[in-house]
Amino acid sequence: MPYNEALTNAAQAFETYKITTPAQRAQLLRSIAEAIEALGNELLETASRESNLPLTRLTGERGRTCNQLRLFADLVEEGSWVEATIDTALPDRQPLPRPDLRRMLVPLGPVVVFGASNFPLAFSTAGGDTASALAAGCTVVYKEHPGHPQTSQLVHKAIAQAIRANGLPEGVFQHVSGGVEAGQELVKHLATKAVAFTGSYKGGKAIFDLAMQREVPIPVYAEMGSTNPVFILPERIKENTEQLARQAAASVLLGAGQFCTCPGLFFIPESEVTPHFIAALEEELTNATPANMLHDGIAGNYYKGLEKLLQAEGVQALVHQEADVLEGRAALASTSAAHWLQNPALQEEVFGPFTLVVRYSNAAELISAAKALQGQLTCTLWGSDQEHELQQKLTDVLRDKCGRLLYSGVPTGVEVSHAMTHGGPFPATTDSRSTSVGTYAIKRFARPVTFQSAPQALLPAELRDENRSGLWRTINGKLSQASL
Amino acid sequence: MPYNEALTNAAQAFETYKITTPAQRAQLLRSIAEAIEALGNELLETASRESNLPLTRLTGERGRTCNQLRLFADLVEEGSWVEATIDTALPDRQPLPRPDLRRMLVPLGPVVVFGASNFPLAFSTAGGDTASALAAGCTVVYKEHPGHPQTSQLVHKAIAQAIRANGLPEGVFQHVSGGVEAGQELVKHLATKAVAFTGSYKGGKAIFDLAMQREVPIPVYAEMGSTNPVFILPERIKENTEQLARQAAASVLLGAGQFCTCPGLFFIPESEVTPHFIAALEEELTNATPANMLHDGIAGNYYKGLEKLLQAEGVQALVHQEADVLEGRAALASTSAAHWLQNPALQEEVFGPFTLVVRYSNAAELISAAKALQGQLTCTLWGSDQEHELQQKLTDVLRDKCGRLLYSGVPTGVEVSHAMTHGGPFPATTDSRSTSVGTYAIKRFARPVTFQSAPQALLPAELRDENRSGLWRTINGKLSQASL
Repeated sequence: MPYNEALTNAAQAFETYKITTPAQRAQLLRSIAEAIEALGNELLETASRESNLPLTRLTGERGRTCNQLRLFADLVEEGSWVEATIDTALPDRQPLPRPDLRRMLVPLGPVVVFGASNFPLAFSTAGGDTASALAAGCTVVYKEHPGHPQTSQLVHKAIAQAIRANGLPEGVFQHVSGGVEAGQELVKHLATKAVAFTGSYKGGKAIFDLAMQREVPIPVYAEMGSTNPVFILPERIKENTEQLARQAAASVLLGAGQFCTCPGLFFIPESEVTPHFIAALEEELTNATPANMLHDGIAGNYYKGLEKLLQAEGVQALVHQEADVLEGRAALASTSAAHWLQNPALQEEVFGPFTLVVRYSNAAELISAAKALQGQLTCTLWGSDQEHELQQKLTDVLRDKCGRLLYSGVPTGVEVSHAMTHGGPFPATTDSRSTSVGTYAIKRFARPVTFQSAPQALLPAELRDENRSGLWRTINGKLSQASL
Repeated sequence: MPYNEALTNAAQAFETYKITTPAQRAQLLRSIAEAIEALGNELLETASRESNLPLTRLTGERGRTCNQLRLFADLVEEGSWVEATIDTALPDRQPLPRPDLRRMLVPLGPVVVFGASNFPLAFSTAGGDTASALAAGCTVVYKEHPGHPQTSQLVHKAIAQAIRANGLPEGVFQHVSGGVEAGQELVKHLATKAVAFTGSYKGGKAIFDLAMQREVPIPVYAEMGSTNPVFILPERIKENTEQLARQAAASVLLGAGQFCTCPGLFFIPESEVTPHFIAALEEELTNATPANMLHDGIAGNYYKGLEKLLQAEGVQALVHQEADVLEGRAALASTSAAHWLQNPALQEEVFGPFTLVVRYSNAAELISAAKALQGQLTCTLWGSDQEHELQQKLTDVLRDKCGRLLYSGVPTGVEVSHAMTHGGPFPATTDSRSTSVGTYAIKRFARPVTFQSAPQALLPAELRDENRSGLWRTINGKLSQASL
């Protein structure tokens, strides 16, 4: 479908869709989940063929995608996400009366979504961006990812079927294919009110720049990945050194290193156990069976980025295998914190199964490294109970550097839940105030509107005196489920 | 103080200030209010001399400024604004366990604030932007407005005194003077994490563009005013026609028309009562005693903008007085909806005591006009009870055009409360997801961070198991004041 027609339809459908009830939107989201499940093995096989990802992984990803749609259905049906807030009139207040004021979040309008290649279901056609935008009451124009066009078409078919079954206009969700230029036209179109993107820094930043240069700028939520540093403290690395290294390696290798949250940096102390940790990491990465990457372009970029990084001063290759056309072969390198601090290029993400070990000589150097970090999706802090003070210092620094701060476990694996933040300061994303995973993602596609002195009949249901559904609302500054 | 030093100080002070307790921040905000009140008449007289605003108005504005500081103190002390959200661990979940996830809003960092000339207290040095940024835990670098430098210095003195009395670093609030270039350097500085601005479209848009072109872009909250259209429906204008016109005139004339919410457009039906409405409006505006504008530059721009608008095709001047160097003399013009729809330049704000009456011939034309509107701070819809259907249609259109939709009363007068939105789609502001008035304004200066599997001792108090202060938190998707 031509982009202009798609956005005209999306703008027209928005007029109908924005005033649907929460129950209608919840029903649509659940219907989409069912229609995706009904695609059966054809979907999984197509996705596997197009992405080189194994069927087991894609089965899990389909579950995640459908659970996500249902989670947003529940959220919308419950309804409190609109932050309904009522200040009742004070007609006798001196010197001036206070009018009746009622605020809630309303949808922004048509949203253009660009999916990612590395999650052909969960961050694609019916992924978190589409689910949260539809939940908010926005219509969606989806730009097909060239890495999995047939998968995308199948999911599109399921969504279109769910829209029809729910008696909603076709323009609620539309599927557009095309190259870079088509994407640019979608971002520039007057009817587009927001953009969501998951992918590379280059792609996300280009979209951001384009959107900011529009006559009417619009929000851009681009999740552009990061290096997800892991900080291992001196006492902690002494406990189960080899097990830590195996845990680290498993996270680096997951999905052939093609996770936005792949840990690409490990800060470890110079100490007597360091060689053991590195040796174990080397062993794990050397012995890992390489998996095919998503496509040869990604593999090519992986080896190119790797070679560039390995040429930097003070960087030693520890695991360095021959490049392949498609296989993502694990790699490992090491440097000192002093070198790392001198060379900002060492912060650049190498998308694939690679990690850089950075050896620090003392706590001050470690804190300097933490302070020098650019914005991250995640930071991980592995410390022992005895290292409270250093952990506190690092916590104070790292919470301003990332969207999620972990104290055990690995950054790969992003829970779809209420408390998740999958976001972070630039360049991890273009909008640190948002998340692209979890229920909070819905807030990206809404804005507040206040109705002043409105007759009951003209108010949205969420703001009327009667609160039939027991919505949580803030009334004169106090949370309440009561009617007025 | 040089801008670079100011931002270096602000960044350093942020390290201390960001980890202050809510009680400490509340105490600071209350101390600032007290210190401003302690400035006594000197503040009011200085502000009046610099702004030409009468003492009674400034007394009210001081009250508003101090109440606003205290409202944010209450909000921060209560604490639920951080949206603490906890998903407890599910270690036995299949196929994968769920980790413990805890999210809350944390402050962005140093904020640069540009105050407005038209509210030398409430939208200036210690105005809503400063109050909400300090409440959020951000440090502030304030760029003095050249329209009231001495007023600004006095308020700065009060803030600095409150900061000292609370034992906080001086860098929590800093005052910088200088021209356009100094402002640009503040926006471009690496340590700046957000910008708040109230003023002209030209000024706000320039700051926005600069901030988006930074190597690391930052949020810009620029409130740039609007024309605040009032829609009067055919039945409603028949009721108390002259009283409506007087109400309209009073709103246009308030503060010599120098309110961001001054109604600069009235859509009225072509009908037998129209001449009465217009005649009454003419009379009110002609007989009004003109007040001095803030300064001669603003008066100059007012008359220049007015002359330009009056030359547009199809526009008739109805009240058109001789221009003055300083006095803002009321003006009135009229045009047809057909002409208005053909000429987008008629949507440009003329900042001063002027309004344009636009006569529509039927409901379809009125809805077309509503759809053609650019983003507004406010829209006002005056309809009668019999006009429900038309009001509903206009409501559906107008809620996407503005931050506040009124059904009676006038747009001037912006309540500082929980349910207020003083914002709106571009070009009313550069970020429609925000408000610059009311408690929701605090959200502009914060972003979510999730702590995963964190030891209790490393968590912020808001996210610990024990909920001593009875904070409202979302636990596994349900609001609760309980401890875990």
